[in-house]
Amino acid sequence: VRRFRYDHLVARMRKVPSAFSPVIAVDRNIAKPLYRQLYDSYRAMIVGRGLHPGQQIPSTRNLAIELGISRIPVLTAYAQLLAEGYFEARAGSGTFVCSTLPEQLAPTERRDVPSGGVRRGSRPVARRTKDLPTGVNSPWVKGFGAFTISHPAYELFPFQVWSNLVMRHCRNPSTSALNYGDSLGSEELRDAICTYLRTARGVRCDPQQVMIVAGSQQALEISARVLLDPETPVWVEEPGYWLTRRVLALAGCRMIPVPVDSEGLNVAVGIKRCRKARAAYVAPSHQFPLGATMSASRRLQLLDWAQSSGSWIVEDDYDSEYRYGSMPIASLQGLDSGSRVIYIGTFSKVLFPSLRTGYMVIPPDLVDRFLAVRQALDLTHPHLYQAVLTDFMREGHFARHLRRLRLVYGERRTALVDNLHQQFGSRLELHGAQAGMHLVASLPKGFNDQEIAKRAALKKLWLWPLSPTYLGKPLRQGFILGFGSTKAAEIPDHVQRLKGVLVAERVVTEQN
Amino acid sequence: VRRFRYDHLVARMRKVPSAFSPVIAVDRNIAKPLYRQLYDSYRAMIVGRGLHPGQQIPSTRNLAIELGISRIPVLTAYAQLLAEGYFEARAGSGTFVCSTLPEQLAPTERRDVPSGGVRRGSRPVARRTKDLPTGVNSPWVKGFGAFTISHPAYELFPFQVWSNLVMRHCRNPSTSALNYGDSLGSEELRDAICTYLRTARGVRCDPQQVMIVAGSQQALEISARVLLDPETPVWVEEPGYWLTRRVLALAGCRMIPVPVDSEGLNVAVGIKRCRKARAAYVAPSHQFPLGATMSASRRLQLLDWAQSSGSWIVEDDYDSEYRYGSMPIASLQGLDSGSRVIYIGTFSKVLFPSLRTGYMVIPPDLVDRFLAVRQALDLTHPHLYQAVLTDFMREGHFARHLRRLRLVYGERRTALVDNLHQQFGSRLELHGAQAGMHLVASLPKGFNDQEIAKRAALKKLWLWPLSPTYLGKPLRQGFILGFGSTKAAEIPDHVQRLKGVLVAERVVTEQN
Repeated sequence: VRRFRYDHLVARMRKVPSAFSPVIAVDRNIAKPLYRQLYDSYRAMIVGRGLHPGQQIPSTRNLAIELGISRIPVLTAYAQLLAEGYFEARAGSGTFVCSTLPEQLAPTERRDVPSGGVRRGSRPVARRTKDLPTGVNSPWVKGFGAFTISHPAYELFPFQVWSNLVMRHCRNPSTSALNYGDSLGSEELRDAICTYLRTARGVRCDPQQVMIVAGSQQALEISARVLLDPETPVWVEEPGYWLTRRVLALAGCRMIPVPVDSEGLNVAVGIKRCRKARAAYVAPSHQFPLGATMSASRRLQLLDWAQSSGSWIVEDDYDSEYRYGSMPIASLQGLDSGSRVIYIGTFSKVLFPSLRTGYMVIPPDLVDRFLAVRQALDLTHPHLYQAVLTDFMREGHFARHLRRLRLVYGERRTALVDNLHQQFGSRLELHGAQAGMHLVASLPKGFNDQEIAKRAALKKLWLWPLSPTYLGKPLRQGFILGFGSTKAAEIPDHVQRLKGVLVAERVVTEQN
Repeated sequence: VRRFRYDHLVARMRKVPSAFSPVIAVDRNIAKPLYRQLYDSYRAMIVGRGLHPGQQIPSTRNLAIELGISRIPVLTAYAQLLAEGYFEARAGSGTFVCSTLPEQLAPTERRDVPSGGVRRGSRPVARRTKDLPTGVNSPWVKGFGAFTISHPAYELFPFQVWSNLVMRHCRNPSTSALNYGDSLGSEELRDAICTYLRTARGVRCDPQQVMIVAGSQQALEISARVLLDPETPVWVEEPGYWLTRRVLALAGCRMIPVPVDSEGLNVAVGIKRCRKARAAYVAPSHQFPLGATMSASRRLQLLDWAQSSGSWIVEDDYDSEYRYGSMPIASLQGLDSGSRVIYIGTFSKVLFPSLRTGYMVIPPDLVDRFLAVRQALDLTHPHLYQAVLTDFMREGHFARHLRRLRLVYGERRTALVDNLHQQFGSRLELHGAQAGMHLVASLPKGFNDQEIAKRAALKKLWLWPLSPTYLGKPLRQGFILGFGSTKAAEIPDHVQRLKGVLVAERVVTEQN
């Protein structure tokens, strides 16, 4: 019997307009009449800006149903609020908070009374977060233009194919597609990634070792949580990727900067500085920012060190898909016979960043620990894009897109290198242009890259300075120039703009 | 000039089949002929299972382009691999690794040689992860059925509306929709969430205090990283939510269990046990698992304690949308004049879990620190669903869906309560049925809920035991019974099945 009553209500609900039910409490046991309680509650919410001008209000019928009261007091209260101008009725669409209420009464933003209330007393936070940079205020981080780093060629992405796949998975999804899902990620996607990694990256892996994550950043974080204790010494590349360092700072680790040269991480120096480091965080395919590819002998040295000192290697293979003018180089993980490498890759650089999807390959004996940490962090990865990506890879779109991008980025990179040479000759030294989506142009001695970058930003030229990528004293000043999102035809103009800035800074002369 | 060459190649690429390019290296400077180098590389990859039977191989033309060599040696190598049966040609679709290779040669899974290599030597991991449960092996966690907790009514979700919105945002997305995006989340979605929270939950907030996160789990994690140091004492509800505890264990905190009664957290006991706790993690709207709603006087006590001891309150409002037979209750955050509450909500319980989207409202002075931590964890939230959710909320679908669910869950809950009363009378005591999507049925003294749950799982009845939700000695044994995903009409049958189990366990008699 009860069920039928509900069905009836649900049927009615389908047609009603749809405003949020406000937190209106009525109490039959107090002397104040119900209509007055409703009136007072609404008025207080409007004055206190809980409801904002123009916002829709539930119908009298809906509110009466939800409060379990007769409709009469609701009608009375609404009539009064309409009469007094707190509400306004719009023919055919319902009742709304009056959209012309004066600012005084319902300000949308009142700076003098913070909405979070008054802050006083002790407000302790974690020690480690005190040292973190708060916010990202450098202009080049926020800007988006010619030399912005980490941006792929958005215009080449096959959106037609992609949105057809999205549609395929979005209509009438199965219950399992809506449910939490495996904390390692979808098995089909892990399988497709394994095929790709074994073939194209020489990674040794099975699907049950692969975890789908929210980009390489989350992979770095999870690996740090599983492997590292507070005060643990860890090797980091010098210069290196700042967000790896932020993860290690949050984990409370002791970072040991190990210099990078043209062969990649200098393992001998690392061993001298701290043989017993628990882990090394490296990007052997295309070091960030200097772009070196780690040589075969350094790779073997690094693996030997890890095996003999009982250490881990976290291999960040963030943009290894792109190599120009030389043969593909297999992953470090594929050389590792001791199962000491955690391999990290991402789709941000080959598809698009807002996809927030990457993966890691975990040594088999550590999979359970990675899972336990992952569940504490965010349980699992969202489903839809995993299903879409699986089909995108299985049906060959991914390989085709990669092949196109490799050629296009090769073209862009050549245009940038040629133009930089032409405009600046040997005044700017170039590093790491053999792979990836960025290169480094280092400045002659005596110039400050951050100062120049700040002034360039005023002219809407976004140059990422090199010096902040050093943990210690910067050995070089320069700029990290991304070329992934800039068409080759447009590169000469942008290099001209760069020249304008560098001439004004007296780094180069007009004639060079 | 160079550009034209590339354009030409790109144009050709569009038509080619799309196999991943394998890691094949050739070297012109060594004596071995190129075709032989190619042959050896392919053969080694097939034997070493880097390429698996039936996998597609790039065309000779593509491989030649990518390696920057003439097509002749590629043709020669392919011909030999075809002749020897490593490759097979399929008319019209390309070249593949032979799909009938013997297991011996290319096993898909060889247990004796783990793909991760040999594990030996010291394999140290973080101390804190050693204590975490590895994997989730209890049958009730993996099962999905009548009484499974945390599952919404999937069948009522308006997929037609949803997939239309997905389509709207998926075709021809803007560059900003593909880019990394604001680490707080989309401003439009934060604005829509503010409107909802102010109206329906009495939360005081501005969009610049809201962070979009991957569900309430990530919100718990971020708050712990910002607020808590290792060894920091923290109040947790006893019994309470196990994944809150996992977060706090990973953060290295000292958990102080504070008992929960019918008025919610017993603040006086908390103060007696540890007045100087840095934070309290609570679910005042509908405590997990016992379901109490925190009384007004306890709320004020808790806020007073936080203000006077300089502590934080993390309010997990995970399923507060659903209340039955009583007025809506505003959030604790809305009562807080000292800006000491971090408010957490999720769409997992009102939309669907695989959406992986929730939100937190942060005290304004802490927003920068939350941002710095968020960037280290995973940078930002994926874009598509944020855009879809914004429209879903703005266009009234969210409020309508909520209103329907509230009625439907009300019906399911009534059916469950009535049937439990009918079948078990006072033998099972019920707790927390006034709100949310689950209730607790506690067992008479002398029974072990985990043992019964294990045996029930053999009959495909998934009962979540109550006792593991205690940090200390369990004061009660019982089951957490979810009713969100079970139709009211089916509930009598499932309660009958439950009775079958409990009769077999001698908890109740057939006649009761």
